[in-house]
Amino acid sequence: MSLRFTHETLPQRVVFAPHEVLPAEIARLGDRPLVIGDRSGLLPDASHFTEVAMHVPVEVAERARKAAHDADVLVSIGGGSTTGLAKAIALTTGLPIVAVPTTYAGSEATDVWGLTENGRKTTGSDRRVLPRTIVYDAALTASLPLELGIASGLNAVAHCVDSLWAPRADPINRALALAGFHALTGGLPRLGEFAGREQTLYGAYLAAVAFASAGSGLHHKICHVLGGMYNLPHAQTHAVMLPHVLALNAAAAPEIPPADLRQLLDRVDAPRALRDYGLREADLPAAVDAILAAVPPGNPVPVTTGNLTELLRRAWAGQEPQ
Amino acid sequence: MSLRFTHETLPQRVVFAPHEVLPAEIARLGDRPLVIGDRSGLLPDASHFTEVAMHVPVEVAERARKAAHDADVLVSIGGGSTTGLAKAIALTTGLPIVAVPTTYAGSEATDVWGLTENGRKTTGSDRRVLPRTIVYDAALTASLPLELGIASGLNAVAHCVDSLWAPRADPINRALALAGFHALTGGLPRLGEFAGREQTLYGAYLAAVAFASAGSGLHHKICHVLGGMYNLPHAQTHAVMLPHVLALNAAAAPEIPPADLRQLLDRVDAPRALRDYGLREADLPAAVDAILAAVPPGNPVPVTTGNLTELLRRAWAGQEPQ
Repeated sequence: MSLRFTHETLPQRVVFAPHEVLPAEIARLGDRPLVIGDRSGLLPDASHFTEVAMHVPVEVAERARKAAHDADVLVSIGGGSTTGLAKAIALTTGLPIVAVPTTYAGSEATDVWGLTENGRKTTGSDRRVLPRTIVYDAALTASLPLELGIASGLNAVAHCVDSLWAPRADPINRALALAGFHALTGGLPRLGEFAGREQTLYGAYLAAVAFASAGSGLHHKICHVLGGMYNLPHAQTHAVMLPHVLALNAAAAPEIPPADLRQLLDRVDAPRALRDYGLREADLPAAVDAILAAVPPGNPVPVTTGNLTELLRRAWAGQEPQ
Repeated sequence: MSLRFTHETLPQRVVFAPHEVLPAEIARLGDRPLVIGDRSGLLPDASHFTEVAMHVPVEVAERARKAAHDADVLVSIGGGSTTGLAKAIALTTGLPIVAVPTTYAGSEATDVWGLTENGRKTTGSDRRVLPRTIVYDAALTASLPLELGIASGLNAVAHCVDSLWAPRADPINRALALAGFHALTGGLPRLGEFAGREQTLYGAYLAAVAFASAGSGLHHKICHVLGGMYNLPHAQTHAVMLPHVLALNAAAAPEIPPADLRQLLDRVDAPRALRDYGLREADLPAAVDAILAAVPPGNPVPVTTGNLTELLRRAWAGQEPQ
């Protein structure tokens, strides 16, 4: 098979260190930081903007941009919504971002931004929103409740697996995705320990780099359709669906044995059945039709009404993938 | 073991494609290209600068800079010296580079430049010399004689292996180095085939990214000292020494079984003994002293007069590593 691909590597400084390095890392980029998020205790002398909301409402972004009028560097300390708000400021101001993640969402490692106006989310990618520096300190994820940590980490696992067959999958982002998968497999069952959270942060970083590079594969399209049509919970839908999509696309992911993913999901008590989240069996035909219209180009296996119906039915009932 | 590292990812566009994409890739960056190297047939209508010399003499760089006075993009088509000359122009002019490698040297994937004046080589790293775009086409390495291709490819193998324990080794550049090693192991014994050359180009790219990030480890320090003191041939010295250094540092490279490296070296008929290149046994004590003074910080195993003497003696005699 001939190699034919275009891969863009994005510039970023990635620092694994205690958060005490933050003032020095911020000083590389500016001397008037605006800190986004509610962890004001970490940088008590800086200006703060603490109003963060899910999906980055435009009104909040506007207020944050005003608060940043005198800043020359943004420091986001928080989860995906906090990073997202800093990106919304950077999108219009060009200010550099130092991102300090406290979950495993991975937004800090991508140039993807999102804004919500009147209930509609707009997303895009822009080099200006890519954080210049990331500081990862596993001490900062200690306060994340275990259940949320697992949900966030499983999201990162899905980034890795789905990257392997996504539309822009290439040997470079596949290598990063596989390294991320192995780190998450080691870290996620040990989120109570510092070393486990550190491995999970590292894996989530690689997952985000790989996923942003490779694009959204079949798994994310399925979850997006199901979530949108039936209001299914995001994290649980991902956890239920991933082994089924891996089984379908197994030939394109020989490096990830299905049993390894199953073992990881079992160790963190991941859910198994969509029926437990309000989906009805009668909903499946309409879901199949909607998903068929959204299958990403280049999926390694043809997706048909037949195999997709069987896949969804098993995921609905909580049966083993086939 | 706690993760503590700083990793800088450099921005680059990497294109694996037939070289017919070159005009389009050049047009992304400028419309007045200066082509460096002697492959003028690939872009017959562009301006050319064909005077390329090893180690980039300052006089040649000066003439090339003058030739570039009207250019807005540089296109290097050739091996490490050609890429190096384009970098020398970019260093003072800031012109973007499209690099088209015809060997496995890897210079195209690093921000390291070198210039030679009065027999002394000066090197440095500067973001301005990092090629913006690389176009890899295995058709262009077909004319490289097999022996040179193997020497160049083994150099890339040494980049991968030495990265694993180099001063700035971190999980990210280690993952890239290991992916590079596996690609080279698959590609290098099949340089006569397009697919083998393609794998080797891919491995050489990863090797260079990893090595530039991780820094120079014990293996390269040893080869540098031996080459400088005894005028030993570069490629052969690397091929002889690498399995010995891997044996010494094996605990830091569990992912590369020594037998895998040995098998690769045997498949390409790599040399085994420094004695075959003019080094005398009586030279070894002075070599040991010089190497001891150059051992990189953080080598995973303490390097002593005792273990280094034994290592060099075996490499000199062509014995199996210990």
